[in-house]
Amino acid sequence: MTSHPVSPSVTPYDDMTPVTRAAYRARSAAAELAPLPRAAKDDALLAIADALEVRTQEIVAANAEDVARAREAGTAESIVDRLTLTPERVRAIAADVRHVAALPDPVGEVVRGSTLPNGIDLRQVRVPLGVVGIIYEARPNVTVDAAALCLKSGNAVLLRGSSSAYASNTALVRVVRDAVGGSGLPADSVQLVPGESRDSVRELMRARGLVDVLIPRGGASLIRTVVEESTVPVIETGTGNCHVYVDAETDIDMAVEILINSKAQRPSVCNAAETLLVHQDVAAAFLPRALDALADAGVTVHADERTLAHAGDTRATVVPATTEDWETEYLSYDIAAAVVDSLDAAVAHIRLWSSGHTEAIVTTSQAAARRFTRLVDSTTVAVNASTRFTDGSQFGFGAEIGISTQKLHARGPMGLPELTSTKYIVTGDGNIR
Amino acid sequence: MTSHPVSPSVTPYDDMTPVTRAAYRARSAAAELAPLPRAAKDDALLAIADALEVRTQEIVAANAEDVARAREAGTAESIVDRLTLTPERVRAIAADVRHVAALPDPVGEVVRGSTLPNGIDLRQVRVPLGVVGIIYEARPNVTVDAAALCLKSGNAVLLRGSSSAYASNTALVRVVRDAVGGSGLPADSVQLVPGESRDSVRELMRARGLVDVLIPRGGASLIRTVVEESTVPVIETGTGNCHVYVDAETDIDMAVEILINSKAQRPSVCNAAETLLVHQDVAAAFLPRALDALADAGVTVHADERTLAHAGDTRATVVPATTEDWETEYLSYDIAAAVVDSLDAAVAHIRLWSSGHTEAIVTTSQAAARRFTRLVDSTTVAVNASTRFTDGSQFGFGAEIGISTQKLHARGPMGLPELTSTKYIVTGDGNIR
Repeated sequence: MTSHPVSPSVTPYDDMTPVTRAAYRARSAAAELAPLPRAAKDDALLAIADALEVRTQEIVAANAEDVARAREAGTAESIVDRLTLTPERVRAIAADVRHVAALPDPVGEVVRGSTLPNGIDLRQVRVPLGVVGIIYEARPNVTVDAAALCLKSGNAVLLRGSSSAYASNTALVRVVRDAVGGSGLPADSVQLVPGESRDSVRELMRARGLVDVLIPRGGASLIRTVVEESTVPVIETGTGNCHVYVDAETDIDMAVEILINSKAQRPSVCNAAETLLVHQDVAAAFLPRALDALADAGVTVHADERTLAHAGDTRATVVPATTEDWETEYLSYDIAAAVVDSLDAAVAHIRLWSSGHTEAIVTTSQAAARRFTRLVDSTTVAVNASTRFTDGSQFGFGAEIGISTQKLHARGPMGLPELTSTKYIVTGDGNIR
Repeated sequence: MTSHPVSPSVTPYDDMTPVTRAAYRARSAAAELAPLPRAAKDDALLAIADALEVRTQEIVAANAEDVARAREAGTAESIVDRLTLTPERVRAIAADVRHVAALPDPVGEVVRGSTLPNGIDLRQVRVPLGVVGIIYEARPNVTVDAAALCLKSGNAVLLRGSSSAYASNTALVRVVRDAVGGSGLPADSVQLVPGESRDSVRELMRARGLVDVLIPRGGASLIRTVVEESTVPVIETGTGNCHVYVDAETDIDMAVEILINSKAQRPSVCNAAETLLVHQDVAAAFLPRALDALADAGVTVHADERTLAHAGDTRATVVPATTEDWETEYLSYDIAAAVVDSLDAAVAHIRLWSSGHTEAIVTTSQAAARRFTRLVDSTTVAVNASTRFTDGSQFGFGAEIGISTQKLHARGPMGLPELTSTKYIVTGDGNIR
C-alpha cells in the first residue's frame, strides 16, 4: 500500500532525492522517539530552550540576512516585521518551548479500555503519528514551535518553511538539532527539508508511506495546493470566513462589543469575523450603532441593500456588497454585512458561504442559542462570545499546531493530542476464536 | 477551499453529472439528519429492518439476476456464494440493522468540556461527518450494513457497490429508501451511486467539498486506487499482513494454538496471520510441533532456511521463502515463516514488512510483552491472544464499518464514533478578547 518501502535496506539509498533521504532519516528517528518516556523528551525541550538563549546572536545574525534580502526585494514592512527576530523575540520563543515541556505528554494516554466478555483486556492508547511534515510561510517562530510540539508528542518533524526565511530557519534548526542530539535523542527528529525550490514541496507531498501527515499552514493557495496534490494525508488548516449573527432577541450593547472585537481586535487572523448577519427585527435598533462603531474602528462595510438602508445617518464607510463578498476572507479592516429574515436564513447563509471555521450568535434567547449551535456545522460555534476565542491557548490546550477546518482526525484548534494516533493492545491468556 | 460550491443554488444543477447531483442531494439530506435525536434515527432503522423482512421476495429475486450473471461469467463458486442472498440471509441482515438501532447514538456525546479561566464554557461534542462515500466489492450485505451505520451516526451515505451486485444493491437500496422516507427522514440519506462504470468511482473521488470522507472496502488494488486518486479524504481499510511472534520464553501449547487459530480459523480475512516469526532459542522445541499442526490444518509454509532446518521430520508442506513472501497477504492456507535472533529482530522484521494491521506475541515474559507492545506500531498488538480478535464486534463496538490501517482519524476497527467528527461550543456572557 505504501509507495515507498518502509526501510532503506530495501531501496537504493544513494538514488534517493535529498527530500526522500530526509524522510527516511525522519522515520528512523520517529521509531526511536515513539517509546521514549516523557522525561527524555522534556530534557531535550529544555535543552533547546537553553540553546536558543545561549546562541541568540547566531540566530539574529542569520535572520538579518533574510531581513536584508526581503527589504531589497521591496517586501511590505508588515511582512518584514513578521520575519524579524530580535533577541527579545528569541527569548519569547525559548519561553514557549519551556511551556511545551511543562504540558502533559499525550503519548501513552489510555483513551478507552475494558475487559471483554471472553476475559481479554482491551486498551486503546495514544501513540505518536510518526513523521509529521509542516509546510508553512514567513514566520520563523513556527519553526521552533512546530519542532517542540512534534518532539513532545513523540513525532519526527520535516519542516518546509518559506524560502524568504531560509537563513533564519537554517540557523534555528541547527541550534535545535544540536540540543536534541546533545540530549541523547536522534538529531534527525527535527529536519529542515532540503532545497528552497517548489520541487521539495512536491516531493514531500508524494512521500506517502514515509510521511504520516502533512500540515500546511499559510495562505489559502498554499493550503489548496497541498490538499489537492498530496498523496500523503493532509490536515487542512486555517481559512476562516467567520460570521457574527445578531439575533432578533439580543442585547444590543453586547452585540456591538462582540462584533467589534470579532472584526477589529486583530483582523489579520483566521478567527476574525468577515461577515455580519443581522435579524431583520433588530436591524433598525442595532445597525446604526454597529455601523458607527465599525466606522470608529476603521472598518469598511460591504453591505447588502437592506443594510445600506440603515447607513444613511451613520459615520460608516459603506460599499455595496457583491456575491463575492459573501465568500471573502478579507483578513483586513473590511466586513460584509447582510440583513436576514430569520435565524434559519442566517444558518442557510452560513451553510452556503462559510469556510466552517467559527460562527457566533449574540442572543438572549435560549431557544435561538440552542437552534444555532445545533444547526451550524463549523469547528466552533460561539454563543455570546467573540469569534476570536477559537484558539489553542484560549481553549486551554497550552499550545497549538494550527486550526483544522476539516472534519477528519482533528477539527478546530489542534493541541498535542491531535498530533497522536492510537493503537489497541489486546492482552489474553491464550485466547483464540 | 471546496472544489464544489456547497449549495445547488449557486451552480447549474442541470449541468451536473448524476454522481454530483446525488452528492448534492446527500449533502442536503445530511443537513437534515445531523440535528435529529436518536429516536427518529432508530425508528427509521427499525422500519428498514421490517421492510427487509416484508420485501424479502423482491430482494431475493433481484439477487437471482446477479447470481445468474455471475454463473454465466464463470465466476468462482466461493464468490458466487458471497454474492447470494437467501431469505435466511436477508433475515440476518435485518437482525443486524435492529442491532445497530440498539447501539448508543454517538452524536451529541460531549468528548471534553471545561470552564475556561475567563468563565467561558467550552464543550467539544460529537457531530456527524456529513456525507460518507463507501466503495466496496461483492457482498450485498455491506449495502445495508453501511447504510444502517451511517444513518445511526447521522450521516448521509453514497454507496458504490460492485457492478456484479448491481441488481441486488438496487433492490436493497430501494427497500431501505422507502423505509427511510416512510419514517419521515429524507430518502436521499441513502443513495446508490448511479452508473456501473469506473467513471462513477472517479467522480466520487473528485467530489471534494460535497463528500466528507471515502471509505474503500475491498481488495488492495481498489484501496490503492482510491488512496492515490481521491481528493476527498480517505480512510484506508483492510490490508492485513499480520504476524505471530513466538518469543524465547513461551508456552509452547499456547503458541501452537494461537498460531493455528490466527492462520487457519478463517484465512480469507484481513486479521488472519500471514507470517510466523520464531525466536531462535525456542525454534527447536516449537517448530516441529507448529509445522505438524500447520500441516494438519492444511497450511503450506513458505519457510526461510532456518525454519526449513526443522521441517525434516514433520508432515509439513514447505516451500523456500523468497523476499516477496515477507510482504504477501496470502488470504489463503499459506504462511511465511522465519527464525529470528531476538525480539528486537522480530520487531525490525515487522516494522519492515507489516502492513500495520495486527501483530501477536506469545510469551511468558512480562518484559518481552511490554517491549513488544511498546515497539510494534500497528493498529493492534496482541499479547497471548489470536490476531483474529481485531474486529469491531470482538472489541465490543457492536458494529464495524471497516478496519482502518491508517493513523489519521481512526485506527483499527471503526465503530459508530469513528463515523463522527466534533465541534466546539463556546458559551459566554458577552466575552471578548
